[in-house]
Amino acid sequence: MARRTIFFLSDQTGVTAETLGHSLLTQFDGHQFDQITLPFIDTVDKAEAAVRQINAVAAEQSERPIIFSTLVHDHLRERFLHASGLFLDFFNTFLGPLELELQTTSSHTVGRTHGINDSGAYDRRIEATNFALNYDDGGKTHGYERADLILVGVSRSGKTPTCLYLALTYGVFAANYPLAEDELESGDLPKLLQPYREKLFGLTITAERLVKIRKERRSAGRYASPRQVTFELRAAESMFKRWQIPYVDTTSFLIEEISSTILSKTNVERRVRL
Amino acid sequence: MARRTIFFLSDQTGVTAETLGHSLLTQFDGHQFDQITLPFIDTVDKAEAAVRQINAVAAEQSERPIIFSTLVHDHLRERFLHASGLFLDFFNTFLGPLELELQTTSSHTVGRTHGINDSGAYDRRIEATNFALNYDDGGKTHGYERADLILVGVSRSGKTPTCLYLALTYGVFAANYPLAEDELESGDLPKLLQPYREKLFGLTITAERLVKIRKERRSAGRYASPRQVTFELRAAESMFKRWQIPYVDTTSFLIEEISSTILSKTNVERRVRL
Repeated sequence: MARRTIFFLSDQTGVTAETLGHSLLTQFDGHQFDQITLPFIDTVDKAEAAVRQINAVAAEQSERPIIFSTLVHDHLRERFLHASGLFLDFFNTFLGPLELELQTTSSHTVGRTHGINDSGAYDRRIEATNFALNYDDGGKTHGYERADLILVGVSRSGKTPTCLYLALTYGVFAANYPLAEDELESGDLPKLLQPYREKLFGLTITAERLVKIRKERRSAGRYASPRQVTFELRAAESMFKRWQIPYVDTTSFLIEEISSTILSKTNVERRVRL
Repeated sequence: MARRTIFFLSDQTGVTAETLGHSLLTQFDGHQFDQITLPFIDTVDKAEAAVRQINAVAAEQSERPIIFSTLVHDHLRERFLHASGLFLDFFNTFLGPLELELQTTSSHTVGRTHGINDSGAYDRRIEATNFALNYDDGGKTHGYERADLILVGVSRSGKTPTCLYLALTYGVFAANYPLAEDELESGDLPKLLQPYREKLFGLTITAERLVKIRKERRSAGRYASPRQVTFELRAAESMFKRWQIPYVDTTSFLIEEISSTILSKTNVERRVRL
């Protein structure tokens, strides 16, 4: 099947155009897409350079490019109306119905996609990230009262990336605590977690996947042995059940999905809106 | 002005619906929006519960809700056609033109928005995150040959969150190295960075903003004094210029924008596509 070149155009970072475009392209299996992001198109000169780049690709390939645009300004967008490609316009398509509904003309300004309405949002995300780093892997255990969430689970069950994602994306203060062998053996909830039971959320994973992950980290020894891994996971899951800690199996989920699941299964508020 | 309730509907995490909706809503200043995300709507029962929730909000408020949907399945989506709200349908709007263009019927399956086509993408993001953590703040300096990028800058110029964001979002291996006082005084590029000049990218920030950030961290002492901060920033910027290290001022940019700027100013490849 012929390759297609996909362009993501934006007067900002291109993250929105990429996110939207990609979610559509995943509906078309078997096609091969080369993806090019052209961010920060905020002048007529840059728009014209982008048109030339698109037309050059179109001239070389048998199939015309597909262009996903979140350009806001009409005078920039209109430069692309005659570019050689299918132009899919995320902005204009929905602004009309929204203007009617809200009975307001939209400002047609280059928006900060993320958090423009809230100048404190950036600070909260950074604070949350610093919190996640300080409270990673049980590194710090005093101050859990500041946490929105405390993720618990065995080593390499996905706690760290999930905490960081929750912090960077949603400004959520998430600590994580690795369950140690003696804690798993006793089955008791670690004493220092007991006052924060309502903040706990468990992560688990299949033994097969965890063996693979641990082997990549440290190939030899008990740490990555199927027997040890199976013991740890069973003990962790029965701890979650005994203490009624909600938990999720991370095996076949992406970080976005794990994070979203946690937020939807708890009452943790997003401190920042995308 | 009346408040509006915004619903984000998805059979997955809701991240795409939120991204779309938010980028549009920032075009309407002065409106107050209450945002509710309803993720993982993957059964008729869940769809009907969501319709009831929307209708209940509509009955309570003077303005009907606005609904951003990325639902893929027709039998779920059609439940919302008579919900009391403006239904903006991301998938249906753009799938038609794409099907025509690609001369394929879309699979109409619930896509993994992020990385479905690439089962190694998740692993690369996790590896990149571990790399960023290991190579954070000059913590590890052997192994820079594995880095795609090495961010340099003074303390609290935004290096850590940027590295983590690049890792989690794009799977980019980004280390960061804080410029120490003696290095700033001498003006020489630190010896251990010299072999990796083409991987370096500088971050800077205004003195005013940095004083504020450092004060929040450690209120007293030279660390946050305007004089010290100004010296460090001037020395860092002249080091960037002398060694022709590209750099960006992070003061008024969000993490997404800083990351996107770095990728567009360098030839670093995204290892993962959104």
